[in-house]
Amino acid sequence: MMKCKKCGIKASVNMRHHKMALCKEHYLEWIPEQTERFIKKYEMFKREEKILVAVSGGKDSLSLWDILIRLGYQADGVYLGLGIDGGVEYSHESQKLTEQFAQQRNLKLHIVDVEKEYGQSIPMLAEKTHRGYGKPCSVCGLAKRHEMNRIARDLGYDVLATGHNLDDEAAVLFGNTLSWEGTYLQRQSPVLAESNGLARKVKPLCRFYERDMAAYAMLSGIEYIYEECPFSVGSTSIYYKEMLNQLENQRPGAKLTFYLRFLEAKNSGLFAQPIAVEFATHLCQKCGQPTSAPDLCSFCRMIEKVSLEN
Amino acid sequence: MMKCKKCGIKASVNMRHHKMALCKEHYLEWIPEQTERFIKKYEMFKREEKILVAVSGGKDSLSLWDILIRLGYQADGVYLGLGIDGGVEYSHESQKLTEQFAQQRNLKLHIVDVEKEYGQSIPMLAEKTHRGYGKPCSVCGLAKRHEMNRIARDLGYDVLATGHNLDDEAAVLFGNTLSWEGTYLQRQSPVLAESNGLARKVKPLCRFYERDMAAYAMLSGIEYIYEECPFSVGSTSIYYKEMLNQLENQRPGAKLTFYLRFLEAKNSGLFAQPIAVEFATHLCQKCGQPTSAPDLCSFCRMIEKVSLEN
Repeated sequence: MMKCKKCGIKASVNMRHHKMALCKEHYLEWIPEQTERFIKKYEMFKREEKILVAVSGGKDSLSLWDILIRLGYQADGVYLGLGIDGGVEYSHESQKLTEQFAQQRNLKLHIVDVEKEYGQSIPMLAEKTHRGYGKPCSVCGLAKRHEMNRIARDLGYDVLATGHNLDDEAAVLFGNTLSWEGTYLQRQSPVLAESNGLARKVKPLCRFYERDMAAYAMLSGIEYIYEECPFSVGSTSIYYKEMLNQLENQRPGAKLTFYLRFLEAKNSGLFAQPIAVEFATHLCQKCGQPTSAPDLCSFCRMIEKVSLEN
Repeated sequence: MMKCKKCGIKASVNMRHHKMALCKEHYLEWIPEQTERFIKKYEMFKREEKILVAVSGGKDSLSLWDILIRLGYQADGVYLGLGIDGGVEYSHESQKLTEQFAQQRNLKLHIVDVEKEYGQSIPMLAEKTHRGYGKPCSVCGLAKRHEMNRIARDLGYDVLATGHNLDDEAAVLFGNTLSWEGTYLQRQSPVLAESNGLARKVKPLCRFYERDMAAYAMLSGIEYIYEECPFSVGSTSIYYKEMLNQLENQRPGAKLTFYLRFLEAKNSGLFAQPIAVEFATHLCQKCGQPTSAPDLCSFCRMIEKVSLEN
């Protein structure tokens, strides 16, 4: 029988990568403690700052919100209605679970519906723009970034927090490394500083394995949407996650080492300072967000194009 | 039927990663042409320089020697007798094939036997030093580097050429990337400049897939040792090669892209200049090779230690 490292009773979660097992009670203490440690270590935010958590209804973002509240931070949520409805009514179900989570805990939740706001759901935008070869993932990413930035700014939040876990971050890093995307490698970080009027972005869960977050959500009784987005099937990031899981199986801890050593190497100056390309010297004439284009940002250009065609 | 891109007859080799198939005749022209291109592109050596090829009896190093001779370079060979004899009498067989190759082509081959030179074979050194946890790979690498450097210097060669192919280089890069080994990442290159009296080191085959080199050796009738070193079974580098092969199967060309984009990124300044750590400020008191230790280099220290214990 695997025993809890802290109290010796039967363990609920065994983390091979940390060579540590914990019982339910101590696990539910340990995860927030660790999160607090990462928040401080990477200087993500201070207690007096207003945090906006991007919640999707999945285990990671709901757990993140739960943890930040437990830790006593001022964290509101924002849910983006994407209008994605596979066989499971994905968007509908995830919104319902997010609302229920907020109500039960008496938390403030902002809801933005992309279709109501712009007349087009994500699948509609994807189809009309032919971006992403039939998969709306690139349109969805663009819309999410744009809307999250907009809401954080309009509502005066200091920080935008997302639920990306280690598996997410390691997969992104793996992809950027396989193609040696210098700019992305130089930028990938648990914290992106505020710039050009966009809120600071932070990833407080970036050092937790996906399965550890699933255990946290389950043990703390959070009801979340189990299904992955129906469009994610066969995506490159899932393929990279599988490869990293192979490595992890072979050598427990490999995924964490890969990510942490990258952060350390970056910190100790492995990469040259990025050449100061002026990515975003203009402000979008429609939404006011920074952009490299002289008139409209990519999102507003997309919306305008689709609207004109209708 | 797959047709040769150059002449339209039935192709012998299909390279999915290059979207190109070639017949035997044109393949045996293409590989040396490409090698010449890489030699020039990476400024490996000039026609008047004296090249020493490190030959093991395997397909890569014998093919490299064959190609350099075809291209008209002055290339002699050096074979290092390691005393590794698994079920196939590995070292014995590979030496025989190397000697036969040189004799048939009337080439100059230097043979150095580690046991005759130092009283110990590689497996004996590995056992006595307890390096490498039962696998002599680290001892073998140390001995090879030391001896190749010594022979190139003593016999006045300008350049030491090794048969590392793309699969080898990509696997090393993959390992260094997974652990973000800054110094190794900054150093990995098709050419290592001469320094401290050590000959320049070059890898003219670094852009060829392993299977393309196997095809070259086979089609040009080179007899080489098929067996891998018996100690390589289960090595990390073989594991990395398998992972990269998975990626390659999914996306033909991925392995080459990974390696080439790395070289490009490095060239365009992705990495900061390595901090000028003075790795090798001393010369070994026994062999005269550069070392970071104040008295003996790692190899001479190992030999001395083992000799004292006898």
